[in-house]
Amino acid sequence: MSNGDIFVGELIGTAILILFGAGVCAAVTLDKSKARGAGWVVIAFGWGFGVLAGAYTAAPLSGGQLNPAVTIGFAIEGTTKWEDVPFYVLGQFAGAAVGATLCWLLYLGQFNLNADEDNAIETLGIFSTRPEIDNPVQNLITEAIATIGLMLPVLAMAGGHKHVAGIGDAGLPVQLIAFVVVGIGLSLGGPTGYAINPARDLGPRIVHALLPIPNKGTSQWSYSWIPVVGPIAGAAIGAAIYNAAF
Amino acid sequence: MSNGDIFVGELIGTAILILFGAGVCAAVTLDKSKARGAGWVVIAFGWGFGVLAGAYTAAPLSGGQLNPAVTIGFAIEGTTKWEDVPFYVLGQFAGAAVGATLCWLLYLGQFNLNADEDNAIETLGIFSTRPEIDNPVQNLITEAIATIGLMLPVLAMAGGHKHVAGIGDAGLPVQLIAFVVVGIGLSLGGPTGYAINPARDLGPRIVHALLPIPNKGTSQWSYSWIPVVGPIAGAAIGAAIYNAAF
Amino acid sequence: MSNGDIFVGELIGTAILILFGAGVCAAVTLDKSKARGAGWVVIAFGWGFGVLAGAYTAAPLSGGQLNPAVTIGFAIEGTTKWEDVPFYVLGQFAGAAVGATLCWLLYLGQFNLNADEDNAIETLGIFSTRPEIDNPVQNLITEAIATIGLMLPVLAMAGGHKHVAGIGDAGLPVQLIAFVVVGIGLSLGGPTGYAINPARDLGPRIVHALLPIPNKGTSQWSYSWIPVVGPIAGAAIGAAIYNAAF
Amino acid sequence: MSNGDIFVGELIGTAILILFGAGVCAAVTLDKSKARGAGWVVIAFGWGFGVLAGAYTAAPLSGGQLNPAVTIGFAIEGTTKWEDVPFYVLGQFAGAAVGATLCWLLYLGQFNLNADEDNAIETLGIFSTRPEIDNPVQNLITEAIATIGLMLPVLAMAGGHKHVAGIGDAGLPVQLIAFVVVGIGLSLGGPTGYAINPARDLGPRIVHALLPIPNKGTSQWSYSWIPVVGPIAGAAIGAAIYNAAF
Repeated sequence: MSNGDIFVGELIGTAILILFGAGVCAAVTLDKSKARGAGWVVIAFGWGFGVLAGAYTAAPLSGGQLNPAVTIGFAIEGTTKWEDVPFYVLGQFAGAAVGATLCWLLYLGQFNLNADEDNAIETLGIFSTRPEIDNPVQNLITEAIATIGLMLPVLAMAGGHKHVAGIGDAGLPVQLIAFVVVGIGLSLGGPTGYAINPARDLGPRIVHALLPIPNKGTSQWSYSWIPVVGPIAGAAIGAAIYNAAF
Repeated sequence: MSNGDIFVGELIGTAILILFGAGVCAAVTLDKSKARGAGWVVIAFGWGFGVLAGAYTAAPLSGGQLNPAVTIGFAIEGTTKWEDVPFYVLGQFAGAAVGATLCWLLYLGQFNLNADEDNAIETLGIFSTRPEIDNPVQNLITEAIATIGLMLPVLAMAGGHKHVAGIGDAGLPVQLIAFVVVGIGLSLGGPTGYAINPARDLGPRIVHALLPIPNKGTSQWSYSWIPVVGPIAGAAIGAAIYNAAF
Repeated sequence: MSNGDIFVGELIGTAILILFGAGVCAAVTLDKSKARGAGWVVIAFGWGFGVLAGAYTAAPLSGGQLNPAVTIGFAIEGTTKWEDVPFYVLGQFAGAAVGATLCWLLYLGQFNLNADEDNAIETLGIFSTRPEIDNPVQNLITEAIATIGLMLPVLAMAGGHKHVAGIGDAGLPVQLIAFVVVGIGLSLGGPTGYAINPARDLGPRIVHALLPIPNKGTSQWSYSWIPVVGPIAGAAIGAAIYNAAF
Repeated sequence: MSNGDIFVGELIGTAILILFGAGVCAAVTLDKSKARGAGWVVIAFGWGFGVLAGAYTAAPLSGGQLNPAVTIGFAIEGTTKWEDVPFYVLGQFAGAAVGATLCWLLYLGQFNLNADEDNAIETLGIFSTRPEIDNPVQNLITEAIATIGLMLPVLAMAGGHKHVAGIGDAGLPVQLIAFVVVGIGLSLGGPTGYAINPARDLGPRIVHALLPIPNKGTSQWSYSWIPVVGPIAGAAIGAAIYNAAF
């Protein structure tokens, strides 16, 4: 894989992931959406099938990692070369920004109708995660443990398929990891909304800050480091456990 | 594949798709249906598993494209020959009409009970999509972006299986694309009800206009071009991105 | 496959199918069940995953058809020999009776608590299907069309895997057909509760008549022929279409 | 497989299973969780995808049985050696304790907010199962039948893949058994909450007794033997049926 393929593959795949993921949050949140109020099961499956769609699309070019924490985990484990990591991560952040922008365009009529100060926090929640209880240490622990629950199955799955450096390479497993992501959402997303992916949270947060959404309120930068540091810590712990045990 | 196989395969497969898809809209909409009010998750999975059932059935004959926008996308990408496109598209529209008619027969008792002017818009919604916000430009953008989110994974999936011209050829991938369609419904269907398929929308709309449903009201022809043009534009953009990047 | 293997395989597989299927109806219907009121999505997935569990278990012995209508469809299509059909069907009815009895034992505490004349119709609904609108011709059409929607994908799937005489033979397809069954439930089950299987309906209805459930009321024998004749008609039509088109 | 691999594999896999499974119970139960009140479909898919994630991770080391009843069933059937059983079971209980502790840490903020005598029974329900109707004989029967419904498909699936001693060995089947577990939850979990696994119930119950949760109330030890004995009895019956019929 060339550096260009890695960048382009991760960009396209992460854009699709965030289009679906931010999209499902818009779908259940915004007024004048047919899915409004459809509940947590819809959120979790929407994000999981976004992983499926994005990783499958990216697979021929970059393997479909779509997540800087996963990329760092693969680097610690040894399959992904450290010198390739920047191209993965840049593609992931660029893709997350593109996907969030596409979601905004797709739901633009709804965003404009909901552009009200009272809805500002809910609007931000379409782009980025927010904790139910403000407690940085607790939130970090939540994101780190949830990401261990992602990293270990991803590594075991990739390892079982000849150490492909991604979750979309092997055809079959991509749907398995999509179901794992659905499970993480259903089971572990309660406290913080399961970022488990720095690009998924920080990329759309930057887009939220830049887009001309009326009355959008703050982008809550004081929380923004937690969905970056927590997932990276969890992925690193998961990779260390994997290297020790397998 | 002969032209006759393409036509018959697409006809049968699309009939099954629309039987399931219009069926699930009837199931959650009509009074005296056991699934009435069962919500958006049911809609999205019903359509997605309709793709699974229809594409799998059509696969041995025609590959199972079931969607004129997807067929045009495959033609732009190069796998499907342009001279075969009319046979795909004719089969898809014929199948959509058959499927919508079968749905009407299956739910005939319920349709008759609900035949009331107050329910006319909901009845049309079983056959064709309706936007939550009337804004043609916005609705076009929504349908186009959602179809990009369909076309790119379909092309990547088909490409990974030796460029089969369809989504049902390879056995495994048909369920992957079914889950992608579920995801599009959950995530991107909020504003317009995700036609993402000209035959899915226009075929049943014509059937709605022809069937003897009492008090059925208008078939909303003024909207009917958007779920045709939007998906074709999205599929073309998706195929262009695919050809440029892969 | 010996006649004994066919009988035993279909018995065990259909028992598991009905244990899950009647079980999910009990789960959402009965008081003092943790799933009470959990809705149509739960019903449809419970039945579908019952097909998965039962067909997979039966596969090594009998292929896992689990449905007299499907067996007759396979006989019309040509894969299953007509002289084997009685052993399939006997096993399927015996298994349905065993499965319904196991469901009753598993939910016995709940059945006893709900043993009230006011609940008699709901209790029957755990065992057998009931139409929302009493209209034999309409109900027959509903069951027949829904079973066409089952038979065509099953035949296409089995045909794609070297004409195995069942839906559990090939490892992968069993989950595909399970998702098709989920889709039929979500989309086509509204009017009659989707028997689509004579053994699924008549077997448990006989068990309902025999079990010592207090205040259980009638077993509604006047309806009982419809979920037998309708699915067989639909499977025959489906097999005829398949033979003509493929 | 060495005894150490078995122990470590089962420990890691069962920890992930219980992290997801206890996690989804916390998610729908606790105040200040985004999934609060999300319903039974979320519970069943959360546990099922926990099986997927845990069994897949454990597969390279131990096959991924994750359940003492399943291990005993495999020993009766003959694939797993009796002398290996203690290493499986010890790993499963250790893993269940680790997973329940990780769940508590992940939801610690929520647990502390909900630490109230009125919520004590609900808090216990995150760790261990509770029957809807207190009747030991009935509850034993429920757990035994539900575990037959797990053991037979697991054995048929493993047998179809060259008698691998686990549910995660073969790549594909792990998702099939995950869907079977979802089905058991949806269909058979109503009366007792479907332990179907001694380690899943007793391990977290011990953790519940040990953790410093304020006002946590009793760990209901008088019920604790039922989710141990019932599943083992069911797995033994299932293995005996399998050996007799297959």
